[in-house]
Amino acid sequence: MSVTYPLGFRAAGMSAGLKPSGRPDLALLIGDPGTTVAGLFTTNRVAAAPVRYCKEVLSTDRGRALVVNSGQANAATGERGEADVRTTVAAAAEALGLEPADMLACSTGVIGEPLHLDAMLPALPPLAATLSRDGGADFARAIMTTDTVEKQATADAAAFRVGGCAKGVGMIAPNLATMLVFVTTDAAVSSGDLQRLADEQLKPRFNALTVDACTSTNDTVLVFASGAAGEGSQVAPGAAAWDALGGALGEVGESLLSQLAADAEGANHVLLIDVEGAATEHDARVVAKAVADSPLVKTAAFGGDPNPGRILQAVGSSGVDVDPANIDISIGDVRLVENGVIPPAYFGHDSLDMAARVAMKEPEIRIYVSVGDGPGRSRALGCDLSYEYVRINGEYTT
Amino acid sequence: MSVTYPLGFRAAGMSAGLKPSGRPDLALLIGDPGTTVAGLFTTNRVAAAPVRYCKEVLSTDRGRALVVNSGQANAATGERGEADVRTTVAAAAEALGLEPADMLACSTGVIGEPLHLDAMLPALPPLAATLSRDGGADFARAIMTTDTVEKQATADAAAFRVGGCAKGVGMIAPNLATMLVFVTTDAAVSSGDLQRLADEQLKPRFNALTVDACTSTNDTVLVFASGAAGEGSQVAPGAAAWDALGGALGEVGESLLSQLAADAEGANHVLLIDVEGAATEHDARVVAKAVADSPLVKTAAFGGDPNPGRILQAVGSSGVDVDPANIDISIGDVRLVENGVIPPAYFGHDSLDMAARVAMKEPEIRIYVSVGDGPGRSRALGCDLSYEYVRINGEYTT
Repeated sequence: MSVTYPLGFRAAGMSAGLKPSGRPDLALLIGDPGTTVAGLFTTNRVAAAPVRYCKEVLSTDRGRALVVNSGQANAATGERGEADVRTTVAAAAEALGLEPADMLACSTGVIGEPLHLDAMLPALPPLAATLSRDGGADFARAIMTTDTVEKQATADAAAFRVGGCAKGVGMIAPNLATMLVFVTTDAAVSSGDLQRLADEQLKPRFNALTVDACTSTNDTVLVFASGAAGEGSQVAPGAAAWDALGGALGEVGESLLSQLAADAEGANHVLLIDVEGAATEHDARVVAKAVADSPLVKTAAFGGDPNPGRILQAVGSSGVDVDPANIDISIGDVRLVENGVIPPAYFGHDSLDMAARVAMKEPEIRIYVSVGDGPGRSRALGCDLSYEYVRINGEYTT
Repeated sequence: MSVTYPLGFRAAGMSAGLKPSGRPDLALLIGDPGTTVAGLFTTNRVAAAPVRYCKEVLSTDRGRALVVNSGQANAATGERGEADVRTTVAAAAEALGLEPADMLACSTGVIGEPLHLDAMLPALPPLAATLSRDGGADFARAIMTTDTVEKQATADAAAFRVGGCAKGVGMIAPNLATMLVFVTTDAAVSSGDLQRLADEQLKPRFNALTVDACTSTNDTVLVFASGAAGEGSQVAPGAAAWDALGGALGEVGESLLSQLAADAEGANHVLLIDVEGAATEHDARVVAKAVADSPLVKTAAFGGDPNPGRILQAVGSSGVDVDPANIDISIGDVRLVENGVIPPAYFGHDSLDMAARVAMKEPEIRIYVSVGDGPGRSRALGCDLSYEYVRINGEYTT
């Protein structure tokens, strides 16, 4: 059901011919009049044209409809890219009977390749004609690039519904330039409060995937609230339903996050790196990210080799000032580094070694790192580095 | 000839049984009385016990002999590791007829595994008995881990000789915990001046491989000056021979660097990333490193796919504040990004696309990134990410 599970939304998706493969590549979403929107965007300095455009729309407190294309990212396209977004948005607005100022736009695909407007523009009116309350799945499919499955989630919060979908498959650094996440609810929430919900419930979750150092040019999270649940649908901080709504948003976010992780390119294992005891949350995030991104840790995960020395090396090389004597590391329940020291027993091929190997072969490998007694904690999600990852990314061209 | 090419040095190497493979794993180097030493060390917060020990010796202005073992890194070994260095050094000093304060020590191998002192200590006296002017190659072989070839270089500077050897094969983040580089000269140089030569001639070169974000626990560069070239061998800044000596040191460093890059694990291509126009050298280095470390750029190199969008994405995600409109990128002689824009012609499979593909298939792939008109410039060395890299690091255990 994805984005059309909540009341007040219609969606559609189709193949417009933007992708050489002929797969679905154009999608529309529209919320009832009065729909509010909030967003989270990539911190990459080379942000795509649609990202800059969306930020502009959000600053005007408008935007209740969305056009998404897959195939071309419209990043690194300069002034032409800026113009192409406006051309797209004008055509989509006309097809939907809206003003251009009501339209948001997202793109995902090859960086640098200009949008195939010749294919996209004529497809918008027929696509708009198919918008429906059942269009969520079509929408979810049309935003995919190298994703192997569509990613959808729903949750209920008291009298309200929350739905969402996402695309993205690169866990290291999103391939094809994007993680896109769209979440809807039929609660009525002011755009300011909706931004707060996005910041509180979605940002920390998706930051685990999109920390500063590896965001793509197009990463975008958009949240829409239609208010279509009817009388008494207004939700604000302090209201009884605020926490329930936040919980449901978080639930949808968590589900989409897991689906993104599970569909990572060529991955056999998801890495969950929990860091605690850092001076600040930022420090904890940097350490967690250093471990999740370490090619040596990732190949060790692929090989099922616990290799605590590689984890320790990644922690030490993160740039965060840590005292080795305070570092503890566990894989699953198995403590492999204590006060910066790997127990010599680990190298005796005894039960410690064996238990760690079992933990390292789980589909979800959980690595716990404590770097002191500070309040900073954070989680990073990663995946193993497999032959398949090299194949997908080495062979991919368009 | 490596470290014994200059006069005043003797070296030796042997198999002491530290490695399960039975390959050479223990090495000694000694300089004539009066030999001075300087060093560069890892910035990893989890520095190995021998790194901390060497820094201590250098601060006392002593250290004219060196014991190196491969097989165990003696990192993450805590107090036991500290004690093991001192035990090793005491035994080596006794075998060489020196005081322990004259000894330096380096280790490379598995992180966390304690040194196999039971095998190492009895081997030191017989190893010392084989020290010779011809021992440079044996020394170079005994410090190897997953290296496929020993890395040696020599150069001449007026009346002086410079020699060196190195080990290390991981370009992304050194595997088996170490890049070790040892350079010798028979000029007479005070330890302060020798440190200056190391800082000026070797640090910028090896920093291209060992930038902060990916140093291992054991990375070490040591430079020894014996003064054995005879009368008038004293060299100091301002002396006629100073520049020649610096040039020869740089030449040896450059050769070892290339040999390290060429032997990178599973690599088919060396990536040379030159960044210019950054606000500072530091910023340039961070950007260069972000490109060299990007798994998407590395797999693209493996696949022979220029993919300028991935390079641009890596530049934008480095964390350095760059203006996309100022970014130019070339691969070899082929300009693929101009003012932040990828020429649409690139996607037309025309001559631009083809020329870039040719440049991307060179053994040495040269990527030039200009991010503005600032004075900061830097180079990073990397390599492609291949199936073979995943195999080596996924299967490696001990």
